Amino acid sequence: MKKIKVVVPVATSLWNESIRQVYETYKDRDTIIGIKNLDSGAEAIEQEYDEIWSELPTIKEAEKAQEENYDGVIIYCFNDPAVRAAKEKLNIPVVGLMEAAVSLAMLLGRKFSIITTTKRGIGTTEDLLKMYGFYEKCASIRAVEMDVLELSDIGKLEEMALKVSKIAIENDNADVLILGCGSMLGISESISKSLGIPVIEPGVAALKLCEDLIEIKTCQSKKAFPSPDEKIVRTN
Amino acid sequence: MKKIKVVVPVATSLWNESIRQVYETYKDRDTIIGIKNLDSGAEAIEQEYDEIWSELPTIKEAEKAQEENYDGVIIYCFNDPAVRAAKEKLNIPVVGLMEAAVSLAMLLGRKFSIITTTKRGIGTTEDLLKMYGFYEKCASIRAVEMDVLELSDIGKLEEMALKVSKIAIENDNADVLILGCGSMLGISESISKSLGIPVIEPGVAALKLCEDLIEIKTCQSKKAFPSPDEKIVRTN
Amino acid sequence: MKKIKVVVPVATSLWNESIRQVYETYKDRDTIIGIKNLDSGAEAIEQEYDEIWSELPTIKEAEKAQEENYDGVIIYCFNDPAVRAAKEKLNIPVVGLMEAAVSLAMLLGRKFSIITTTKRGIGTTEDLLKMYGFYEKCASIRAVEMDVLELSDIGKLEEMALKVSKIAIENDNADVLILGCGSMLGISESISKSLGIPVIEPGVAALKLCEDLIEIKTCQSKKAFPSPDEKIVRTN
Amino acid sequence: MKKIKVVVPVATSLWNESIRQVYETYKDRDTIIGIKNLDSGAEAIEQEYDEIWSELPTIKEAEKAQEENYDGVIIYCFNDPAVRAAKEKLNIPVVGLMEAAVSLAMLLGRKFSIITTTKRGIGTTEDLLKMYGFYEKCASIRAVEMDVLELSDIGKLEEMALKVSKIAIENDNADVLILGCGSMLGISESISKSLGIPVIEPGVAALKLCEDLIEIKTCQSKKAFPSPDEKIVRTN
Amino acid sequence: MKKIKVVVPVATSLWNESIRQVYETYKDRDTIIGIKNLDSGAEAIEQEYDEIWSELPTIKEAEKAQEENYDGVIIYCFNDPAVRAAKEKLNIPVVGLMEAAVSLAMLLGRKFSIITTTKRGIGTTEDLLKMYGFYEKCASIRAVEMDVLELSDIGKLEEMALKVSKIAIENDNADVLILGCGSMLGISESISKSLGIPVIEPGVAALKLCEDLIEIKTCQSKKAFPSPDEKIVRTN
Amino acid sequence: MKKIKVVVPVATSLWNESIRQVYETYKDRDTIIGIKNLDSGAEAIEQEYDEIWSELPTIKEAEKAQEENYDGVIIYCFNDPAVRAAKEKLNIPVVGLMEAAVSLAMLLGRKFSIITTTKRGIGTTEDLLKMYGFYEKCASIRAVEMDVLELSDIGKLEEMALKVSKIAIENDNADVLILGCGSMLGISESISKSLGIPVIEPGVAALKLCEDLIEIKTCQSKKAFPSPDEKIVRTN
Repeated sequence: MKKIKVVVPVATSLWNESIRQVYETYKDRDTIIGIKNLDSGAEAIEQEYDEIWSELPTIKEAEKAQEENYDGVIIYCFNDPAVRAAKEKLNIPVVGLMEAAVSLAMLLGRKFSIITTTKRGIGTTEDLLKMYGFYEKCASIRAVEMDVLELSDIGKLEEMALKVSKIAIENDNADVLILGCGSMLGISESISKSLGIPVIEPGVAALKLCEDLIEIKTCQSKKAFPSPDEKIVRTN
Repeated sequence: MKKIKVVVPVATSLWNESIRQVYETYKDRDTIIGIKNLDSGAEAIEQEYDEIWSELPTIKEAEKAQEENYDGVIIYCFNDPAVRAAKEKLNIPVVGLMEAAVSLAMLLGRKFSIITTTKRGIGTTEDLLKMYGFYEKCASIRAVEMDVLELSDIGKLEEMALKVSKIAIENDNADVLILGCGSMLGISESISKSLGIPVIEPGVAALKLCEDLIEIKTCQSKKAFPSPDEKIVRTN
Repeated sequence: MKKIKVVVPVATSLWNESIRQVYETYKDRDTIIGIKNLDSGAEAIEQEYDEIWSELPTIKEAEKAQEENYDGVIIYCFNDPAVRAAKEKLNIPVVGLMEAAVSLAMLLGRKFSIITTTKRGIGTTEDLLKMYGFYEKCASIRAVEMDVLELSDIGKLEEMALKVSKIAIENDNADVLILGCGSMLGISESISKSLGIPVIEPGVAALKLCEDLIEIKTCQSKKAFPSPDEKIVRTN
Repeated sequence: MKKIKVVVPVATSLWNESIRQVYETYKDRDTIIGIKNLDSGAEAIEQEYDEIWSELPTIKEAEKAQEENYDGVIIYCFNDPAVRAAKEKLNIPVVGLMEAAVSLAMLLGRKFSIITTTKRGIGTTEDLLKMYGFYEKCASIRAVEMDVLELSDIGKLEEMALKVSKIAIENDNADVLILGCGSMLGISESISKSLGIPVIEPGVAALKLCEDLIEIKTCQSKKAFPSPDEKIVRTN
Repeated sequence: MKKIKVVVPVATSLWNESIRQVYETYKDRDTIIGIKNLDSGAEAIEQEYDEIWSELPTIKEAEKAQEENYDGVIIYCFNDPAVRAAKEKLNIPVVGLMEAAVSLAMLLGRKFSIITTTKRGIGTTEDLLKMYGFYEKCASIRAVEMDVLELSDIGKLEEMALKVSKIAIENDNADVLILGCGSMLGISESISKSLGIPVIEPGVAALKLCEDLIEIKTCQSKKAFPSPDEKIVRTN
Repeated sequence: MKKIKVVVPVATSLWNESIRQVYETYKDRDTIIGIKNLDSGAEAIEQEYDEIWSELPTIKEAEKAQEENYDGVIIYCFNDPAVRAAKEKLNIPVVGLMEAAVSLAMLLGRKFSIITTTKRGIGTTEDLLKMYGFYEKCASIRAVEMDVLELSDIGKLEEMALKVSKIAIENDNADVLILGCGSMLGISESISKSLGIPVIEPGVAALKLCEDLIEIKTCQSKKAFPSPDEKIVRTN
C-alpha cells in the first residue's frame, strides 16, 4: 500500500475534484490518494510573487503529511513551489510536477516544449529549468494566453493548446510536449492523437514517479537536501 | 496487465536468474516479465567494441517483442546498446538502463556519481552522458576495477563499491549514486544504508519507468525516433 | 538624493547596527539608508526551508518601500530570498546580495569562490548560481563551518575564512573571493590583504549597484519580471 | 608512402567509383587508397537503426586493414558508424567523416550548418554532435529531402542543396557549410561559389586529416579508446 | 575624490565632447573625468582588424594614467580593446564598456539584445561574449546598419535603433537592451520609453562601475591578470 | 606547390632555425616554407599585454604574404595573436597554432591538457579556449614554470614537461596532451613514448592543417571574418 498526499498549493478547492478523477484513473491499485488545498495563500500561481504567498502554508501541509503517515508527497503545481524546502524537511519522497514531467520527457524524445497558460509565467519557468539543468532540452515555452482561472473551459483550452502546440512542433522543433500547468486537465490525449507526438500531463508524471520512489524504498538525498537546523527559531 | 520483455544483450544466460529475482521483487503485481539473452554477440559489454557485437541480435530480439504481444521492452545493459535504434523501430515503449537511472536520480539530488566495473568503459559512459545531456550532472565515474564476469562475487563487489562510493561522495561531491552496470545486483541497499545517500539500481529504475510509460499509454516520440525507411535493404 | 530601504529578511535586529556601520562607510554622500528587519520569519537563513518562513514578510516590507517613497530596495541576504518576486511587484530597483556580488566579481577576475557559513547551505547556493547563469564561473563554495548566529565572533570568523580561502585559491583556482553571507562583516579587507586577491562583501556590492541603478534612472525589466495579476486573490 | 583503407559501410558498391574519383583528385601524391564496401549490412545509412546492420561488418573490414598493412582507416559515412569501436580495436589512425568535417570547419568560421539528405536522420546527427561536443557550434541541420539512393541525380541535388543552404546562411546564421552525407559528391565547389562561403565535403576532410595523422606518426589515444578485453568471448 | 581617465581608443577627437556631456550628467559629484583620444590608431573600431591598430596606443595611454595619478581607467569602446592587457599592467581599476554593460544588465533581466552599428562587427562581439561567459544570456545582436562615423545623425540613428530593437524584443525575446557602441549617444532614454524595457548605455555603465570599484577600494585580481614579465623586451 | 609564410610574432630570430628544422621534417614534399620574425614587438609572448606589442607588426607581415604570392599564412604562437584579424584581412588561409592543435586533438581523444610555460599565461589561454568553444574539452592547463626564453634548455624542459604531463593524465584525466607554446620543440615524441598517449606539437598541427586548406582550395569564411571597412583611416 502506498499513501500519497497531494498538496494543491492554492487557496481554493476548485481543482481538487478534477485532480482526484485523473489520479483515480492513473494510480496503482494499492495507492491511496489524499488531496488537500490551502486555507490561505494565492488562489492561483502564475509567477514568483504568487508562489511566495503559498509556500509557507504549502510546507506546513507537507510537514503534516509525515505525522499523518503518508509515504510520499506531491506538490501539485508546475512551478514546484516549496518543493526543494519540503525535500529538506521531510524524510519521505517529495515530488514536484515540473521535475517529474521533465524526467519522463527525457525518455521519450530529445527536446520538449512547454505549453503554459500566460506569458506572465514564462520567466519563472525558465528560472526553474535553468536551476534543474533542463533549460538546454527545452525547445520553447508557448502560452495559450488564458488565465489559470479560465482553464476549466476545456473546449477553448483544447483549441488554443492545439494551436500553440503546432507552432512548438513545426517552428521550435519540439518532439515531446509538456502541459505546463497542473490545471490543464483532460486534453493531453486528444492533442497527442492530433499531432502524433507524446503529451505529458505533469500531475500524472508526478503520481507515477512518486509511486516508483515509494516502491523502491528510496527518498531524496539528505546530502543534497539537508534537514533544517533545529537551533533556528522560525515564526509567522 | 503489463507484459515487459527484458532483452539481456549478452551471449550468456548467466545473469537471467538474478535479474528475474530482482524484477519479481520490484515489479507491480500485474506486470509479467519475459527475460531473453542473446544467442550470439558479446558475452559481456564494457565498451563500444563489445556493443557492436551485440547490437544486431539485440535489435532482433526487441523487434520480436512486438509480435510476441509485449507492451514494452527493456534493454538490460547500462551502456544502452541499440536503445535508440529500438526506439526508432518499435511502437511500444523501449527503455534503457542508463537513461532510466539518470531520470530517477534527477528527482533525488543534484549530482550523481556512477560506480562502474572497470576503467575501460568510462569513456563510453561519458559519451552517452554527453549525448543524453546529463554530463554536467555527473560528479564522477568511479570504477571498482572488477571485470563484469567477476561481479557475481558479491562480497568483494560490495567491499570495493563501498570504497569507491565514499570517494565519490567525499571528493567528487556526489549526492546520489548510480550503479553503472546491470550486473551489480544485491548491493544497493547495504551501500545506501552505510553511506546515507540514495543508491539507484539501473535495472530497477528501468522496470519502474517502463511500467509507468505503459500505464500512462505513451511511447517514445516518432518525431524524435522516426521509423526506419522500408525502402532500404538490410542483410546480415 | 537616493533613498534606499534595506530589508534584512530575518526575525531579529541583531545585524542592523553592523549593517548600518558598513553602509555609512560605503554609501554616497547623498544616499539615505533605512534598515528594517522582520517581525516574524526565520531568525537566520541557511537553506530553502528557512527562506520560506521569511519570504512573505520580506515581500511585504519591500512593498511598503514604495509607499514610503524609497528609490530602491536591497534585500540583505546572500540567498536572494524574495528578490525575483519583489522585482515583479515593485517599480523601483530591487537588488539582491548574491546577484550584486557576482556582477561586480565579473569585472575583477575569471573565477570566484564563495566563502559561506555551513555546508548545509551549499546546495541552495548552487541552485541560485545555476538559475542566474553564473555556475560555470564559480570555482568552489567553501564553508567556514560556523552557524550564522556564531558569526559575530570576528576573530574566529577571520581565522576560519582565511583558512578556507587559501584552499579556494590554491586548489580550486579562484581569483576573486565573495563572502557568501551578509553577516560576514569586517573581515574582507584583512583577507584581501593577506591573500592578495579581491574579496567582495556582498552587502557593499548591493549598495553600490543599487545606487547606480537609481542614478541612471533605470529599473528591472517589466518584460522579465511582469507585475503580478491583480485578479488573483492572495491571503495569509 | 601512406596506405589508407576506405571502408564504405553499406552493402552496395554503388558509391565506390565516385569516391575513388574524388580521392584521386585530393589525395597526396604518395597516398595509396583502397576502397571496400560491405558484403552485408544496410544498403544506406540514414539513422541509428541502419547503423546497427552495418557496424559489425564495418568493424571487421576495419580490423582486416591492420593485417593488410594499411597505415590508416577512413569509415566513409557521415554518421561515423563503428568509428569509436574501431579506434578502440585498431592501433592505426581511424577517422570518421563527421568528426573530420567539423574539425576542419572550426578553422574556417564560428557556426556551421549541415546539409543533410532527409529529416529522418537529423536526430541521429544531433546525438553525434552532442557526444563530440560540437552541438553548440551547429547553426542548423537542414535536409534536402532526398533519399540517399536518389543522390546520384546531381542536378536535382545541387538545386535542392543550394536552396536549403541559403536558408541556413540567412536564417540560421551559418558561416560555413558541411555536406552531411558522404554521397553528396561533386556539388561543394559550385555551392561555395554561388553563396560565397566555404563548403566542406566530409570525405575529403577525412582524407586530408587521416593523411596528417599518418604523417605526424600519431594515433588515437589508447587512454581514450582502450583496447577491448581479450577475455570476453564474442560471436556472430 | 575619484579621478577617472577615459581613453577613447580611436585616432579622432570627434566623440570627446559628447562623451564629456554624458559623463558630466551621470558622474558622482566628486568624480573628475579626463578624456583622451589616440594620436594614431584606427579612426573607428568595428572588428578585430581595427582593434589591432588601436591597442598599442591605447595601452600606452592607459599606462600613463597611473603616473598622472588617476584612480581608475575606462577604455571607451564596446569591443573592450586592450582591456585585459590594461588590467594586467595597471594597479588601478580598468573597466571596459561591454563588460560593464553586461554586468549591469544581469540585474535587470534574463536576456539582453545588443543593438550594434554594422553586421561586420557581430562576429567580434560574439567572440567577446563567449570569452566573458555571457554568450548564453545574449538573445541576439542586431545591427542598425550604419557606419560608426554616421552615428552623429541622431535622428536616423534613433529611428533605425527603434526598428531593430522591436525585432529584438518580439522575435528574439530580449528583456533588456544594450547599445553596442560607445558612440550611440543620446537615444537610450527615448527607446526605453517607447519600448518599455531598460536600455543600457555602455559608457554610463562603465562610469558607474568604475566609480564603485574605486569607492570600495578594490581592483582587478592580479591572480587573474598577472603583471607582465619585466624581463621581456618590447619595442615598437 | 604550396607556399606557406610562417610569421613568428616576436622581435627575435632566436626560434627561426628550430622551426625551420621541424617544418622541413613534417612538410609535404611540394610545400615551400618562408619564415619571418618581427622587427619590433615583444621578444616573447606570455600574456595579453605581450600580444598587444606584437600584433600590429604581425598583421603587417601577414598582409605582405599575399603580395609575396604565398598560398597560406601560419602565425607561429600558441596565443593566436592577430589570427582573427588576419583572417579578416586576407583572402588566403590563415591558421593559428592553438586552433590547429585543438582541431587535431579532437580526433585523438576526449579531453586534452595543455602543457604551458609559466602560470602567468594560463588566464589568456583560458580566454582563448572559451572564445573558440573548446574550454569544456580542456582537462587542465599545467605550467612547467620555465620562461619562454629558457625553453632552449631541452633537457630541463623535457624533465619538467614529463612531470606535469603525468599529473595531467593521472589527476586531470587528460587523454591527449598539447604542448602550449610554439617553442617547446623536440620533446613531443619522447613524452608520448614515456606516457603512452598522443602529444601534439602545435606548430606541426598548424603546418599540416594549413597545407590541407590550401589543397582543398578553401579559405576562412568571409561571412565569419569580413574584410575590414576601407573607409576607415588607420595610422601608426
